[in-house]
Amino acid sequence: MNKKLSLAVILVLFFVEISAGQNKMVVYQTDYGLKDGAVAEMKGVAMEVSPDLKLFDITHEIPAYNIWEAAYRLEQTVRYWPKGTVFVSVVDPGVGTSRKSVVLKTKSGHFIVSPDNGTLTLIAQSLGIEQIREIDEKVNRRKDSQKSYTFHGRDVYSYTAARLASGVITFEQVGPLLPVQQVVSIRYQKAELSGKIIKGNIPVLDVQYGNVWTNIPDTLFNQLKPKFGDAVNVTIFYKGKMVYQGSMPYSQTFGEVAEGKPLAYINSLLQLSFAINQGDFAKQYQVASGNDWSLEVRLQ
Amino acid sequence: MNKKLSLAVILVLFFVEISAGQNKMVVYQTDYGLKDGAVAEMKGVAMEVSPDLKLFDITHEIPAYNIWEAAYRLEQTVRYWPKGTVFVSVVDPGVGTSRKSVVLKTKSGHFIVSPDNGTLTLIAQSLGIEQIREIDEKVNRRKDSQKSYTFHGRDVYSYTAARLASGVITFEQVGPLLPVQQVVSIRYQKAELSGKIIKGNIPVLDVQYGNVWTNIPDTLFNQLKPKFGDAVNVTIFYKGKMVYQGSMPYSQTFGEVAEGKPLAYINSLLQLSFAINQGDFAKQYQVASGNDWSLEVRLQ
Amino acid sequence: MNKKLSLAVILVLFFVEISAGQNKMVVYQTDYGLKDGAVAEMKGVAMEVSPDLKLFDITHEIPAYNIWEAAYRLEQTVRYWPKGTVFVSVVDPGVGTSRKSVVLKTKSGHFIVSPDNGTLTLIAQSLGIEQIREIDEKVNRRKDSQKSYTFHGRDVYSYTAARLASGVITFEQVGPLLPVQQVVSIRYQKAELSGKIIKGNIPVLDVQYGNVWTNIPDTLFNQLKPKFGDAVNVTIFYKGKMVYQGSMPYSQTFGEVAEGKPLAYINSLLQLSFAINQGDFAKQYQVASGNDWSLEVRLQ
Repeated sequence: MNKKLSLAVILVLFFVEISAGQNKMVVYQTDYGLKDGAVAEMKGVAMEVSPDLKLFDITHEIPAYNIWEAAYRLEQTVRYWPKGTVFVSVVDPGVGTSRKSVVLKTKSGHFIVSPDNGTLTLIAQSLGIEQIREIDEKVNRRKDSQKSYTFHGRDVYSYTAARLASGVITFEQVGPLLPVQQVVSIRYQKAELSGKIIKGNIPVLDVQYGNVWTNIPDTLFNQLKPKFGDAVNVTIFYKGKMVYQGSMPYSQTFGEVAEGKPLAYINSLLQLSFAINQGDFAKQYQVASGNDWSLEVRLQ
Repeated sequence: MNKKLSLAVILVLFFVEISAGQNKMVVYQTDYGLKDGAVAEMKGVAMEVSPDLKLFDITHEIPAYNIWEAAYRLEQTVRYWPKGTVFVSVVDPGVGTSRKSVVLKTKSGHFIVSPDNGTLTLIAQSLGIEQIREIDEKVNRRKDSQKSYTFHGRDVYSYTAARLASGVITFEQVGPLLPVQQVVSIRYQKAELSGKIIKGNIPVLDVQYGNVWTNIPDTLFNQLKPKFGDAVNVTIFYKGKMVYQGSMPYSQTFGEVAEGKPLAYINSLLQLSFAINQGDFAKQYQVASGNDWSLEVRLQ
Repeated sequence: MNKKLSLAVILVLFFVEISAGQNKMVVYQTDYGLKDGAVAEMKGVAMEVSPDLKLFDITHEIPAYNIWEAAYRLEQTVRYWPKGTVFVSVVDPGVGTSRKSVVLKTKSGHFIVSPDNGTLTLIAQSLGIEQIREIDEKVNRRKDSQKSYTFHGRDVYSYTAARLASGVITFEQVGPLLPVQQVVSIRYQKAELSGKIIKGNIPVLDVQYGNVWTNIPDTLFNQLKPKFGDAVNVTIFYKGKMVYQGSMPYSQTFGEVAEGKPLAYINSLLQLSFAINQGDFAKQYQVASGNDWSLEVRLQ
C-alpha cells in the first residue's frame, strides 16, 4: 500500500507537471446577458468536463453582435490573469456560417477560445500570437450536440475550453495549426504621432462613469512633454466627421478640476482618457466608441 | 504514521463514496436581482455550512413573482449540469403562506430546492420525479432565524441546499416524502400535432436577442416533413386572441435570410423558434411569453 | 519517501493551522457595474496572488459614488459569511486624494478592505472594530502599478485582500494601526424611542420590489407593544421635509393585506419595513433612501 501510495503521489506530481500549461481557470465573456440560462448552460457543460475547474466572468453585457467591444474587453482584461488561464469569448453574429472556431495561444501564455471574426484583433496585436489552432469539432464537440446548429458557445467553445483548462486535451489536441497572419482583423485608427498631433481611436467607454478612453498610451502622449495643468486640445470624429472639439487640463486626479468640468488623465490601462469630474463626458457630448471613432490630440 | 495515513486515505475514499449522490455544486436562481446583498447573504450561509461548496448562478433577473419563467429557466438549464448538482430556485410570491418548501430529486439525479408553487411544473414533466420531500424546518433551518418571517431563500432554501450538496444531510434527511402526483403544476398548451397543424406554447423569449422560442420539439416539427427553405405559417395567440400571423422560411442559419427578415429555426434546445436576422422578433410584433401564450404552426 | 511524505503532511497541517485567521474567501462590492472588464481585472489579480482563493460578489451595482449605499450593503451582508472572510468594497469618489486605504477587522472576525471615506460607518457600529490598519502601499501594491493613479481597486484593494485572505501576509503586515475613533463616519438619524414615537432612518430600499427598509430593529419597535393587525402611523421626511404620511396594518405576511395595499412588517434583517402587497411602495410614494431620509413611527 505504501509503495503504491508513493507511486500514486509521483504520478499525481507528474500529471501536474505535464498539464502545467493550463491552470484550471476558465473566464467567460458573451453578449448573452444574464437574464436567461445560456451562460449557466455553458458553465454546466464545463463542470461536467471537470468539477475541479474554477469559472469566472468578464462580462455578459457585450452589446449584441458587437465584435469590436468583445475584442476590447479581452485586450483590457487578459493580461491581469495568471498564465495558462483559458478565456472563452462568444460574440458570434456569423454563427452557422463559415467563420472558423479557434483557440489562440498568446505569447504571454494565455488561451482564447473564440470565433475568428475580429474578436482577436487587439489581443493578437498587444500580447502576440504564439500559435492559433482551429477547433476540430469531430473531437472537441459535446456528445449528442450534432443536431443543434445554434449554440456553439455551449457545445464547442465552453466544452473545448473546459477540456483544455483541465488538461483533458493538450493545446495540440485542439485541432490543426492555422497560419498566424490569417487571423481576421478589424481596421481602426492606431495611435500615432504626426508632427505635434497624436491620432488615435476610442476603443471603448468606461461605461459606468461615461469616461472616454483612447488607445493612446501614456508613453506616446509623453512625447508631447505634457505637464500636469497643461491644456490639452481634443477633437473627436465619427466616420471622419467632427463630433466634439474642446480643451481641458491634463490632471493627476479628478478632484483637480471643479465638479462638472472636463479633464484629461491617464487611466488604469495607462492610456489617455477624458472625463468630467462627477459627470458623464460621453453622454454630455454624445461620444461613443468603436472602430469608427477617431480623435486628434495636441497641447495648446 | 504510515498505517494511519493509509487508513486515512481509505476513510477519505469511503466518504467520497457514500456522499457520491451529491457533488458539492449549488446553482442559484431568484427574482432578487443583484443590486442588493440578498444573493450574497444566501451564499454566505452556504459557505458557513461548508467552505468546500462551489456556488454558481442561473440568473437573478427572473421578473418579480414570475413563477412560469422560473419553471422555464430550470427546464432549460438543469440537464446540462452534472448529476448530483443541487439547484435553488426562489421565486416565491406566497412566502409566509401555506405553500410547501420542498426538494425534488429528478430521475436524472439532479436536486431542486424550491417553494412548491408551480416552479417545478416543467422539470417534473421532462426529467421526471424520482422523489419529492418537504423540508423539515425544525431541522433544516438556519439557527437563530426563527424570528424572521420573510427570508426563506436564505434561512431555509440556501441552508438546506448547502447541507444536502455538502453531504451534511442525506436526501432522506431533508424531510418526509410527499406524493409525487401532488406537485403543484401550471396549465399551458402542450406541444401536439392535430392533423397538419402543430399547437404549442411560447415558454420564454431569448430575451437578449428578442427571439421567440416555442415548446415544439424538432422531432414533432419533423413530422410535418419540413425542408430547409420551406415556408412556415405561424399564428400566435395571447389568451386565445390572435397577436401575429405570418410566413417565414425554415432556415439552418440566420444568415440564410436578409437582415431584418424573419426565419423559423431549431434553437439550441432543439425546439422550433422564430427570429429576425439581426433584429428583434418579439419587440417588432409585440410577442411575449408565459402560460397565456399559445401558437399554431403549419407548412404552407 | 514515506518519511518525507509524513513530514509534508505535518507541514501542511501546520500551515493550515497558522493561517486559520483567514479562510481564503474574498467577497467584492463596487460601483463599477459588470459591463466592462474592471471587476474581472480585480479578480485576475487575486487569482495571480493565489489560485486557491474563492471569489464572490455582493453587488457591483452600487450607484456611482454612493458611499452610503456601500456602507449599508456591507452592514446587510457581512454577518452571514464565515469568520475570516475578507470583503473588498470600492466606492471611492475621492480616489487620488488624501483619503486613507484601510483594512478593518471587526470584533466578529471579518475583514473589510476599503477606502476610509464613510463606507465603514455602519459595520463599525454594528459589528465593532477589533483593529483598523492603513494599507502600506510600499509593500501591499501590485508590482509595476506605480504609474497608474486611478485603479486602486485592482492594484491595492484586491491585491491586498488576496494576500490577506490567502495568508501571504498576516493582518499585522497590512500596515500600521490607526486609532479606532478616527474612522470616517457619515451622520444619519439613529433609531431611538422618544415618548411613544420611534425616530429612524431609511438606510436602503429593497430595490427589486420597492419595499422601504428602516434602521428600526424589531426589539425597539416591540417596545410600542404592537400586535399583528394594529395600525401603524408612518411619516417620512427628506432633509426634514415631509414626503409621506399614512397608516398601514402591522402584518406577519404580505398576503394579509389585499393586493395593492400597504403593510408594515419585520424584514429579514429584523428591522421595521414598509411594502405594498405585489406593488412598489417606494415608487408609488416617491420614497428613496440614504442619510438624508428620516422617519417617525407610532401606533395609532
